[in-house]
Amino acid sequence: MSIQRRQFIKAAGLGAIGSAVAAPAIAQSAPEIKWRLTSSFPKSLDTIYGAAETFSRMVAEMTDNKFQIQSFAGGEVVPALQALDAVQNGTVEACHTAMYYYWGKDPTFAFGTAVPFGLNSRQEDAWMYQGGGIDLFNDFLKSYNVYGLPGGNTGCQMGGWFRKEISGVDDLKGLKMRIGGFAGTVLQKLGVVPQQVAGGDIYPALEKGTIDAAEWVGPYDDEKLGFHKVAPIYHFPGWWEGGAMLHFGFNIAKFNELPKSYQSIVRNAAAFANTDMQAKYDARNPGALKKLVAEGTKLRPFPQPVMDACYKAAQEVYAETAAKNANFKKVHDIYMAFRNDQYQWWQVAEYNYDNFMVRARPWQ
Amino acid sequence: MSIQRRQFIKAAGLGAIGSAVAAPAIAQSAPEIKWRLTSSFPKSLDTIYGAAETFSRMVAEMTDNKFQIQSFAGGEVVPALQALDAVQNGTVEACHTAMYYYWGKDPTFAFGTAVPFGLNSRQEDAWMYQGGGIDLFNDFLKSYNVYGLPGGNTGCQMGGWFRKEISGVDDLKGLKMRIGGFAGTVLQKLGVVPQQVAGGDIYPALEKGTIDAAEWVGPYDDEKLGFHKVAPIYHFPGWWEGGAMLHFGFNIAKFNELPKSYQSIVRNAAAFANTDMQAKYDARNPGALKKLVAEGTKLRPFPQPVMDACYKAAQEVYAETAAKNANFKKVHDIYMAFRNDQYQWWQVAEYNYDNFMVRARPWQ
Repeated sequence: MSIQRRQFIKAAGLGAIGSAVAAPAIAQSAPEIKWRLTSSFPKSLDTIYGAAETFSRMVAEMTDNKFQIQSFAGGEVVPALQALDAVQNGTVEACHTAMYYYWGKDPTFAFGTAVPFGLNSRQEDAWMYQGGGIDLFNDFLKSYNVYGLPGGNTGCQMGGWFRKEISGVDDLKGLKMRIGGFAGTVLQKLGVVPQQVAGGDIYPALEKGTIDAAEWVGPYDDEKLGFHKVAPIYHFPGWWEGGAMLHFGFNIAKFNELPKSYQSIVRNAAAFANTDMQAKYDARNPGALKKLVAEGTKLRPFPQPVMDACYKAAQEVYAETAAKNANFKKVHDIYMAFRNDQYQWWQVAEYNYDNFMVRARPWQ
Repeated sequence: MSIQRRQFIKAAGLGAIGSAVAAPAIAQSAPEIKWRLTSSFPKSLDTIYGAAETFSRMVAEMTDNKFQIQSFAGGEVVPALQALDAVQNGTVEACHTAMYYYWGKDPTFAFGTAVPFGLNSRQEDAWMYQGGGIDLFNDFLKSYNVYGLPGGNTGCQMGGWFRKEISGVDDLKGLKMRIGGFAGTVLQKLGVVPQQVAGGDIYPALEKGTIDAAEWVGPYDDEKLGFHKVAPIYHFPGWWEGGAMLHFGFNIAKFNELPKSYQSIVRNAAAFANTDMQAKYDARNPGALKKLVAEGTKLRPFPQPVMDACYKAAQEVYAETAAKNANFKKVHDIYMAFRNDQYQWWQVAEYNYDNFMVRARPWQ
């Protein structure tokens, strides 16, 4: 917190307000405020990290630079995977993170980012903005002292890089794959041995054969790390991230102290960054894909029996988790009902249109 | 223009600035401004019309109600299809419209909304926000004295309501269909006789058989008008609107007079409304689809030979139009190259993910 901010709050005599919907108690309509935002990402992931910068830039522009939010890469202020904790305890006012990183605290966090065989990117927006998702997820986040807003999306991710092609379910047995969280738990049921490997260590591990496979993001991010040179099979789709949504997280008390106009500015800037980040991935992935294919990458869909087995294993993990965790069950049931309705409609116009366009494209 | 606004401009001694990127010359950082926005839509299309209200609400919230934009339904201030003209000549400061309504002035306008076999909704965002689309389209709009920003999307529309099923290309010959603009021109090549029928007149025309078919939007809007009761065949997809993007249009001089912070607020509010409107359609279409099917609607894909013939006819119209219009050719070539790259990538992860999910859904 900056000096200006501390003085300001002291002058206004404010404490924590406690509820995300409370009316702001600040009289001054356009105060000077400086916040810090900790990202869970390195600057090298320019598309994801860039969403935090876009957000900050928009907030600054809209307030004539009165409200400034400085963003820090993962590790600069707090470790990458403690971004939420830092907001919860007030070390920083804001974070930009993937909620499923906190799956270990409570698996319900996963619904904020992506769950196996979940919504695609556009459907996640529908759920969040118009399907009650933002409110439902914040009911859950409240006990962590965090108010969350959608903050970008990667779109459907790739299934990752494999030294050998996966031809059937048996090929998963004993496979050492760099994959975590919910997806790792599902794949364990099929014999995969999930590995925790930091981004910078994946390449040498794949090269030496310490691991057999690794998932990262998609063409634009993956190409920069050069995985295709040591593991040429690029499987798809990443069924554990049909759309991976990022979140901005705000300390609830700090958010409530903002003037109402600034709260709205934060909501609009977050929504702008949310759309802009997906647009950036969509605009950049095609060029990276071409480059990867030109350099020998072999694109391979996961075989249908593998997809079916993973789907079945995911249902088992959902059932087991829901039986143990009421938060999870509540959000799961609402989310999955929404997903089923979404795909019932999606299969009509959207899917058939894309189907035709995918086949028509080579005519060009 | 409100009295406050006129006095304000008079006091500041401002004229039109002339370029959308000029620095604002207003000293007062948060002036009181009242604008009028004319929509091309009736309030009954609550999802589309609602995007203008969402935009205005966000601008008001972010400025502590200092910048108020009152929205009017089509016909309240100017006729629905003259919204762009009203902004061009300064009758109102802003509009919310579909740019392809102005196809008669110049077919290049169509790229602002949808063109046959064009980008889907998410790809349109990618093109606009990160593919140079906003700048390219504004290069074109400049001569109309309008600055445009994406302002919502319907997603892929349906192919419309047919009294009899289209089983092959021959069924298009002599078909009297309520369809306009670019799509009508394409369908004419296959023998369709395009009809101009206002929204409120479609139902009786279908009932009496004055027309054989009519396209409108998709389940949520169509169900309200009851077309399924008189024309039970619901064909898909609406290949002429793979994603129909709306636009906010602003009088360039009026936009340039805004303080820079207000310009940014307008950009962010427009982006919010853009995403929120698509989310609203996505959230509401599934329920409407269920209702339509329960009431006897027969969902039918256009047969593959019909899609192929329409694609071929569209290429002919593109070639003919590009040969006559340099604006059109310039935007067409950039847009189609972007589209081809988009679908090359889309067919990998996104399409395969949706494909699996569409098939997995009935398991629930």
